[in-house]
Amino acid sequence: MMETILNLGLNDETVVGLIHRTDNPRFGYDSYRRFIQMYSHVVLGIDAEVFEGQLAALKSERGVKDDLDLAAADLERLVEEYREIVRRERGAHFPQDVEEQLWGAVGAVLQSWNTARAVEYRRIHQIASRGGTACTVQAMVFGNLGRRSATGVAFTRDPATGTKRFFGEYLMNAQGEDVVAGIRTPLPLADGAPGSTQPKETLAAALPECYHELEKLQQKLEHHYRDMQDLEFTIQEGELWLLQTRSGKRTAQAAVRIAVDMVSEGLIGKEEALLRIEPAQLDQMLHPTLDPTVRTAPIAVGLPASPGGAVGRIVFSADAAVAWYQNGERTVLVRPETSPDDIHGMHVAEGFLTARGGLTSHAAVVARGMGKPCVVGCETLHIDPETKEMRVGGQIYAEGNWLTIDGSTGAVIAGQMPLVTPQLVGEFETFMSWADALRSLKVRANADTPKDAEVAKAFGAEGIGLARTEHMFFDPGRLPVVRECLLAEDRETRKRALTRLLPMQKADFKGLFKVMAGAPVTIRLLDMPLHEFLPTRVDEIAETARAMGWTADRVRERAEMLREVNPMLGHRGCRLGITHPEIYGMQVQAIIEAVCDLARETGMESRPEIEAPLIAHANELRHLRAIIERVAEEAISRAGQRVPYTIGTMIELPRAAITADQIARHADFFSFGTNDLTQTTFGISRDDAGTFLKAYGEKHLFPHDPFQCIDTDGVGVLMRWAVERARAAKPGMEIGICGEHGGEPNSIALCHRLGLDYVSCSPYRVPIARLAAAQAVLTTGERK
Amino acid sequence: MMETILNLGLNDETVVGLIHRTDNPRFGYDSYRRFIQMYSHVVLGIDAEVFEGQLAALKSERGVKDDLDLAAADLERLVEEYREIVRRERGAHFPQDVEEQLWGAVGAVLQSWNTARAVEYRRIHQIASRGGTACTVQAMVFGNLGRRSATGVAFTRDPATGTKRFFGEYLMNAQGEDVVAGIRTPLPLADGAPGSTQPKETLAAALPECYHELEKLQQKLEHHYRDMQDLEFTIQEGELWLLQTRSGKRTAQAAVRIAVDMVSEGLIGKEEALLRIEPAQLDQMLHPTLDPTVRTAPIAVGLPASPGGAVGRIVFSADAAVAWYQNGERTVLVRPETSPDDIHGMHVAEGFLTARGGLTSHAAVVARGMGKPCVVGCETLHIDPETKEMRVGGQIYAEGNWLTIDGSTGAVIAGQMPLVTPQLVGEFETFMSWADALRSLKVRANADTPKDAEVAKAFGAEGIGLARTEHMFFDPGRLPVVRECLLAEDRETRKRALTRLLPMQKADFKGLFKVMAGAPVTIRLLDMPLHEFLPTRVDEIAETARAMGWTADRVRERAEMLREVNPMLGHRGCRLGITHPEIYGMQVQAIIEAVCDLARETGMESRPEIEAPLIAHANELRHLRAIIERVAEEAISRAGQRVPYTIGTMIELPRAAITADQIARHADFFSFGTNDLTQTTFGISRDDAGTFLKAYGEKHLFPHDPFQCIDTDGVGVLMRWAVERARAAKPGMEIGICGEHGGEPNSIALCHRLGLDYVSCSPYRVPIARLAAAQAVLTTGERK
Repeated sequence: MMETILNLGLNDETVVGLIHRTDNPRFGYDSYRRFIQMYSHVVLGIDAEVFEGQLAALKSERGVKDDLDLAAADLERLVEEYREIVRRERGAHFPQDVEEQLWGAVGAVLQSWNTARAVEYRRIHQIASRGGTACTVQAMVFGNLGRRSATGVAFTRDPATGTKRFFGEYLMNAQGEDVVAGIRTPLPLADGAPGSTQPKETLAAALPECYHELEKLQQKLEHHYRDMQDLEFTIQEGELWLLQTRSGKRTAQAAVRIAVDMVSEGLIGKEEALLRIEPAQLDQMLHPTLDPTVRTAPIAVGLPASPGGAVGRIVFSADAAVAWYQNGERTVLVRPETSPDDIHGMHVAEGFLTARGGLTSHAAVVARGMGKPCVVGCETLHIDPETKEMRVGGQIYAEGNWLTIDGSTGAVIAGQMPLVTPQLVGEFETFMSWADALRSLKVRANADTPKDAEVAKAFGAEGIGLARTEHMFFDPGRLPVVRECLLAEDRETRKRALTRLLPMQKADFKGLFKVMAGAPVTIRLLDMPLHEFLPTRVDEIAETARAMGWTADRVRERAEMLREVNPMLGHRGCRLGITHPEIYGMQVQAIIEAVCDLARETGMESRPEIEAPLIAHANELRHLRAIIERVAEEAISRAGQRVPYTIGTMIELPRAAITADQIARHADFFSFGTNDLTQTTFGISRDDAGTFLKAYGEKHLFPHDPFQCIDTDGVGVLMRWAVERARAAKPGMEIGICGEHGGEPNSIALCHRLGLDYVSCSPYRVPIARLAAAQAVLTTGERK
Repeated sequence: MMETILNLGLNDETVVGLIHRTDNPRFGYDSYRRFIQMYSHVVLGIDAEVFEGQLAALKSERGVKDDLDLAAADLERLVEEYREIVRRERGAHFPQDVEEQLWGAVGAVLQSWNTARAVEYRRIHQIASRGGTACTVQAMVFGNLGRRSATGVAFTRDPATGTKRFFGEYLMNAQGEDVVAGIRTPLPLADGAPGSTQPKETLAAALPECYHELEKLQQKLEHHYRDMQDLEFTIQEGELWLLQTRSGKRTAQAAVRIAVDMVSEGLIGKEEALLRIEPAQLDQMLHPTLDPTVRTAPIAVGLPASPGGAVGRIVFSADAAVAWYQNGERTVLVRPETSPDDIHGMHVAEGFLTARGGLTSHAAVVARGMGKPCVVGCETLHIDPETKEMRVGGQIYAEGNWLTIDGSTGAVIAGQMPLVTPQLVGEFETFMSWADALRSLKVRANADTPKDAEVAKAFGAEGIGLARTEHMFFDPGRLPVVRECLLAEDRETRKRALTRLLPMQKADFKGLFKVMAGAPVTIRLLDMPLHEFLPTRVDEIAETARAMGWTADRVRERAEMLREVNPMLGHRGCRLGITHPEIYGMQVQAIIEAVCDLARETGMESRPEIEAPLIAHANELRHLRAIIERVAEEAISRAGQRVPYTIGTMIELPRAAITADQIARHADFFSFGTNDLTQTTFGISRDDAGTFLKAYGEKHLFPHDPFQCIDTDGVGVLMRWAVERARAAKPGMEIGICGEHGGEPNSIALCHRLGLDYVSCSPYRVPIARLAAAQAVLTTGERK
């Protein structure tokens, strides 16, 4: 992962030998000084800046710009000054025993496995931390032996765009680290680099034989490895040496283009092409991102919850977001954490930043659903919505200040940073068509609104796997009616309120069905802790009281009665449907009538799948199924039309998974709700996990974050059990997944192995899921 | 379940026939009027009082006291008046078609299955509601044919004490319903009834032949059924008819005595005797109860959460309970719901009454642990701790008013009701020794204090299966130090606070070990949502701020940061131990040092089992085990003594059960925490379940309350899986259960079938568990 190339085995004695052998004291002292600097930095941990400062001072004293203009004596003096730095910083002489140097260097390489950067890298890429790195010791060649020596890096194709052209940079009379370090500006290998306006001293011009040899070699290597290569080379006195070749890193756009090109070049097959792209990488292609060429200094780094870059003015409340939005301003919503009360602000903000919560917190889930950038769990921020201030690093940021967040890295940057929008190139469609032809898992999307459904369909969703009706309830125009309905102490008042909600819900569903044009739409009946709907602020209470003709005290008292200690495990989901059957009745009526209206108006036949959430016991579904069927059949017979609806349930509680055979008797389909299933299987609330999951990560207690990637040994076992039992009770039963995991490649592979029919994920993850589903066929070898 | 004996088939015509046949017009009209009254009450739903009023008016008009003194003409007039009542109340003539009467009566019997009383009875006794009742139609005999006719009920032994004596009551010239209704006072069958001072007209004296026949018959019946019989008989003109015999209801005390007596009489064997007692019934014998001879009118009825009667003055806060207690007054703590903050008041109150919460709410669990009566979820009560008022049925009850609660029935009664304390008779010990000889499950107790441990030991506990250390943390003297420890922002401050807690914890553990005298003591390391310890009230915040040298704002802000949305699934259990290892370290040190001190002082060798709570993943236990072993070994080597400690974990999350084999590698023992396991398997918070579990009960959605009786199909499957996998990984591993279910007979039977080593329950349930464990051997036929 971390590469360290060290000139090893230089001490006073070998340097004298080197000078003697090469007859070049300048080279000898320069090599030695470089070696001391690098060894001191990598092995002894002394800041490279100290040495660079000394070098700069000497160059300024001599009035020269290039290291090459320093004389041998200057460099000899520099060696002494460097040794003095080591003595001062480490209280010991620079080691003269080359064996000691070797082991010191080997140790430094091995220890690099545990640097903060490496740990973070592994965490993000879900690489296990047991393992470790290896260290290869080999003889050196030198690119700094004068004007016929050079060093450089090259890519066999353009890693930014994927264009097929040999591409690279080099430095004359330099070592590899000079190119990597970015201290001197490297030159192009050959003419024709895009954007180059001035002719440069290319390698092709300076050392044409070496260049042509390199050009031939790169073709050979790409052909051999059948992938775009990233090469490192050194030319020592006119002789070309290849130090390393490996598959090159590339942008998602380049990756897709290279894969598709290589298939048409006959280098690789379509299946291999599909395996070449990390599905998560596709995300890059769908969101505007920070311009990677602009260097940034984050004021804080949180968890990268939803990719892409967002730029806007800081607002501390949903209402403020709406107010600025109405004045034509872009905003970033900055909150300690978000809640469903913030939805109206989240709709208009460019992105969200929270101090608390993990990658599956409310803000993160909503952001991914909306395809908006989001950074969560940024704990160093002190966010105070009261005083409308965000404090970090001694600075105070107020409402209206510009802020940029990078949801791909978690970076929070003060001010306005430039964004770039990647283009979905033509190869993208070709590539995805290969994935679609191969995969057996269908891909649906989680979408609550016609707008979401349109995005999902554009990304290739084959249906809606989860339409959350509670989000429809939070619409500011409806909330007062919803509150009236839930606070009502008698069924009649409640029914009156529901009568007013019915046409609104019907319009919601009609919109979804229309966009999906006959593709299946799974509609989850209301699932939300009762109390989340309740008024809490004084103005909300007053408004509700006015609407209901109650006193504010009565509203407050009733709302207090409904307060819950653990709302996640409280009066929600089907429990609400069982205690308030008229709510589910209204929703079912709205679904059926929407289907009938649409059929009458357009001739379109819709396929609603009515889903009861949070079933723990077969009896709950049996009971609700009877209610749903009664209401549906009444609506159908009123309309006199045929409606091919089905009734099913989420499997999102351990007990539902364990008793899946019993529940299957009353269900036409199952959909795994792996967010809640993970929460209950682990006994961890994702909203509260931030405080300890961080410590768990540091101690490597969970191999993966189970809210990102399905926990195979626990949750996965329950899922396997449920699928086996359900299909034993009801062969061929339709089973899908609609948790956040439905868009995560490893989890999709698990779903494929379990034999699910579809995965459903947020619209912006649909392409990822399509590719991951195809890869699952290739990696498991199980084709349906 | 409900018995209805009807004189069927009387109409004008048959009455005339009856008079003709018996030559007794008085009997004819009296039978007819009784028939009209009973039929009207049972089938037509007309209040019996209306008829009784008419009868009383007539007797007063005639100046007679006994029905028998009314003449035939009076009764004929009464028949007419009764018919008029029927016409007025139901707008129809009293039916003259005997077939119509018959079907009306049969329908009434069948409908009795669904009366509120029957539904409630089934709920309490966990009888499924599918099923129904049967109705037998048979010919009548008449106990009201004059002075040589009679009717009565009898028990073959005393149902109150179990004493072996024939015992019963009868009425001359009467029908069965007269005895049951309690309108006329029945007479004893024979002399010698205890407490009878005046000679009465006994059946033995009045109809000696019948009495002796009855006496012989009862012996024969008891011998035949080998159980105490409850008989109903009628004498028609000197001829004895037995209407019914069945096993008689009896008090727990009588049940034990009868069982033990019957074994010594050779009627039944010991094993049959053990099956004769419902284990839950033993609870009666351990608590003072309301005097059953005193009639009560409850002002409200809640859920019976912890048995026994409590009488005291109403207090609305824990502090008020303490204040009244210090003035020598008994109190009943009345709260919307209780929390750990109320513990000091719960210690001094006689019993607890809450408006919210179910049978496993905080109040209920604490009450059963303390052996105090408790009624919970009494939702008709409006309890306002602010105004110190309890409102129900238009009445207001204030602090200091007397209140009685019956934790065996859920009744709440205004005023002071008399209590009786059952005696643990000698037969009890004999009986329990048979149970102990038979059972293979060990029985331990959940006890946190030496006092609890003593009670448990007296009831036969063979160890402590769960000592909850967080209860020790809530002691008012320690809470400020605990708060300091948890609020601390650095490890040093925290360690200083822990240093002060160490000697307190050590004393706690030493006390437990001393009482248990070498029996195993499972100590669960701290498990409590972090935030439950935090100060919330202004005075608590001020006090904490003073103690820590912080500003109140800083304390409030820090406490707010630690607030959780779903504390049950939050930063608690081993998660607290992992993020704050010094807390568990202090506890382990205290355990080991307590063992060593006690060994030095008394030579006693204690057996601590150190238990980590809320493990979800094997890595958590691996990590904690290393910490525990390090601290323990350090303490052991400091003391230079041998300490035979073991390290294990609760299995209380679905994931722990599923991956029990992986966890077993790091555990010496397992203990099922079925409270949390049920909560997470169902996704139901017991604190919030009250609002919907009631509706579930009415709709029969769950066969049992899963928090009372282990859910075999869900939680039970996880337990079986865990036992099989754990023992496969580590043969013979010790596995127990310490949830509330550990004291529930059906759950104990399941634990026996699963092959657990022990159950652990609250001290007052230990005898129940001992008996249930023995019964499990008999009913499953599986002996270890």
